[in-house]
Amino acid sequence: MNDCIFCKIVDKEIPAEIVYENEEVVAFNDINPQAPVHVLIIPKKHIPTLNNIVGEQKKLIGEILLVAQKIAREKGIAERGYRTVFNCNADAGQDVFHIHLHLLGGRKMTWPPG
Amino acid sequence: MNDCIFCKIVDKEIPAEIVYENEEVVAFNDINPQAPVHVLIIPKKHIPTLNNIVGEQKKLIGEILLVAQKIAREKGIAERGYRTVFNCNADAGQDVFHIHLHLLGGRKMTWPPG
Repeated sequence: MNDCIFCKIVDKEIPAEIVYENEEVVAFNDINPQAPVHVLIIPKKHIPTLNNIVGEQKKLIGEILLVAQKIAREKGIAERGYRTVFNCNADAGQDVFHIHLHLLGGRKMTWPPG
Repeated sequence: MNDCIFCKIVDKEIPAEIVYENEEVVAFNDINPQAPVHVLIIPKKHIPTLNNIVGEQKKLIGEILLVAQKIAREKGIAERGYRTVFNCNADAGQDVFHIHLHLLGGRKMTWPPG
């Protein structure tokens, strides 16, 4: 956990463009944005991958999606639309092993999703 | 709601290749798969878009992600990896207005995610 870059963002040990924060989650701009709006929403608690989520964390996962909804509204993309993505492990290209929801919007997204 | 194709799948009024079902959700193969594993996971309750989710549905959203995890494990892609996607409204290409989580895996996914 001490080496986790996202835990360091949670702890404000390294900077990020934080767009939202509450007791459970932090949201900040992706440093390599793939769309006009590209925000990462993470739990403050360190959870390495989606495979590690357990039943008692269901509300936390729902909270992450609700925060995505809230940010989409604040950024003015809720009606046009947005995509949310969780990547798990190598085949999906997960690069930081602290779960993070990608919120992408502000442009037309294509299909397939990668 | 009566015209919702996914409600009809929930009610078994139209067929689908159902891979998992419990009291809250149904999961079935996408009819236009974009990866060797491409499953849609939906709540039985009709919720049109991510914009319509409210706080009391956080656990339901978490349950949808937990079912994705479970199916990934059963399909043997949990360790290699998988991507989960929610599309909201036109910019994301949402085509059925009953929320559905895409679970994709069995191949290397690319970036950006569409």
